[in-house]
Amino acid sequence: MKNVPLHIVLVGAGNVATHLAQALAREHRVVQIYSRTAAAAETLAQAIGCSATHQLETLVEDADVYVVSVKDDALPSILPRLKEVNPRALFVHTAGSIPMEIWKPYVQHYGVLYPMQTFSKTKPIDMTQVPFFIEATAPEDRERLYGIARSMSEKVYDATSEQRKMLHIAAVFCCNFTNHLYAMAADLLEKHGLPFEAMYPLIDETTAKIKQLTPYEGQTGPAVRNDISVMQLHTDLLSAYPELQTIYKQLSESIVLHHSPKT
Amino acid sequence: MKNVPLHIVLVGAGNVATHLAQALAREHRVVQIYSRTAAAAETLAQAIGCSATHQLETLVEDADVYVVSVKDDALPSILPRLKEVNPRALFVHTAGSIPMEIWKPYVQHYGVLYPMQTFSKTKPIDMTQVPFFIEATAPEDRERLYGIARSMSEKVYDATSEQRKMLHIAAVFCCNFTNHLYAMAADLLEKHGLPFEAMYPLIDETTAKIKQLTPYEGQTGPAVRNDISVMQLHTDLLSAYPELQTIYKQLSESIVLHHSPKT
Repeated sequence: MKNVPLHIVLVGAGNVATHLAQALAREHRVVQIYSRTAAAAETLAQAIGCSATHQLETLVEDADVYVVSVKDDALPSILPRLKEVNPRALFVHTAGSIPMEIWKPYVQHYGVLYPMQTFSKTKPIDMTQVPFFIEATAPEDRERLYGIARSMSEKVYDATSEQRKMLHIAAVFCCNFTNHLYAMAADLLEKHGLPFEAMYPLIDETTAKIKQLTPYEGQTGPAVRNDISVMQLHTDLLSAYPELQTIYKQLSESIVLHHSPKT
Repeated sequence: MKNVPLHIVLVGAGNVATHLAQALAREHRVVQIYSRTAAAAETLAQAIGCSATHQLETLVEDADVYVVSVKDDALPSILPRLKEVNPRALFVHTAGSIPMEIWKPYVQHYGVLYPMQTFSKTKPIDMTQVPFFIEATAPEDRERLYGIARSMSEKVYDATSEQRKMLHIAAVFCCNFTNHLYAMAADLLEKHGLPFEAMYPLIDETTAKIKQLTPYEGQTGPAVRNDISVMQLHTDLLSAYPELQTIYKQLSESIVLHHSPKT
């Protein structure tokens, strides 16, 4: 059964909003993009072929769905201004860590559409494989939201606001923090005339292994062996990079602690 | 040109030694496995079909190559005992962070054979894709070593002891530390009834992205957006897990610092 195309307004033009707009536009009609920054709204609107605005007062009022995908800090100032827009429409935000109930004072039909993925504007992504976690109160809102999520992805799950927060924290560890470790390693290698590309096979194997062993079982390296002389050497070598040194020490200590024999 | 099969003794029976023994045995003849622990030596020797020993005094003396792959801490006590074994043989260790020159007082022909990969005994690995970094002083030793490395892998590079140390530190960041972050995330999710498998698409995309954008360019998440309210919320939510909380704070601060506008 093919869904009836919905009219969708996208509030936001950042990384997540950009990828959502493109994915939503495949089955639905994205009618307007809002961004605080006029240029950002224009750029995305042109890519999608719809209108742009940087003034919330000029939001289209007859859309079926309003998807708010902005920095979490900006939500509290935006939501109250959606109050009078359209009482029949469905309003959703895309934030991992903001409870669904933040909508309650303002609109009747609401929910959360959380795509758990790392989005960079210039990197295309296969949205059909992105896990979406959805939440709504009224069953008919949940149905509408499920349909919207399924129009983009094969992987749609229900999650409460509490579960979503934990998913978001786990995602920060698995993606944002690991990526920052890659960035620090790349920087260190560059300073010593070595290519970061040399790390690819190691990185690929590390992520392949966690699908066969648990990450706990698959832990390797000086810390899990409690190889004190290597850890000391590395710490000494990193004395020129105090920030890396601190992170090296702390993560090594944490590994030692997690893997030391229980008494 | 096919290499003449060499007779190889493997000193060590840990994760690296296990995978090396199997890879070396394809073109060469692994004749003996030593491990301090008799059972470990036996297990690996049986898998390879060679003899085992837990006494260095009984090492085979007519092998062509001695590969020492033990915990770095153990090297200083083992190397002196290889002094009289075989003056014509090539001696190599496999440690990222131990200089080649550690061999100098003891043997004539020596070098380093460093496979930069994460090895777990129970996880098979395609050794042909593992980058090997080699080092030797005498050109003929370097040739022998290059041949041995190429018999296992398509990716063999020269690296000085200094470069190898930096590669090892970078590998700790890219593999051991990221894996520990996965383990901590898995633990957190499990405690909240959520499957770690939900993270796979995110993890895969994170590592795919660093091959198209630099990790610095591809950084996403609350810290790079300086989304203070999310970071505060996460820190509060992690108050039941002080270790995760500390790591969350420190890595977030580091991301903020690296990505704040330069003045």
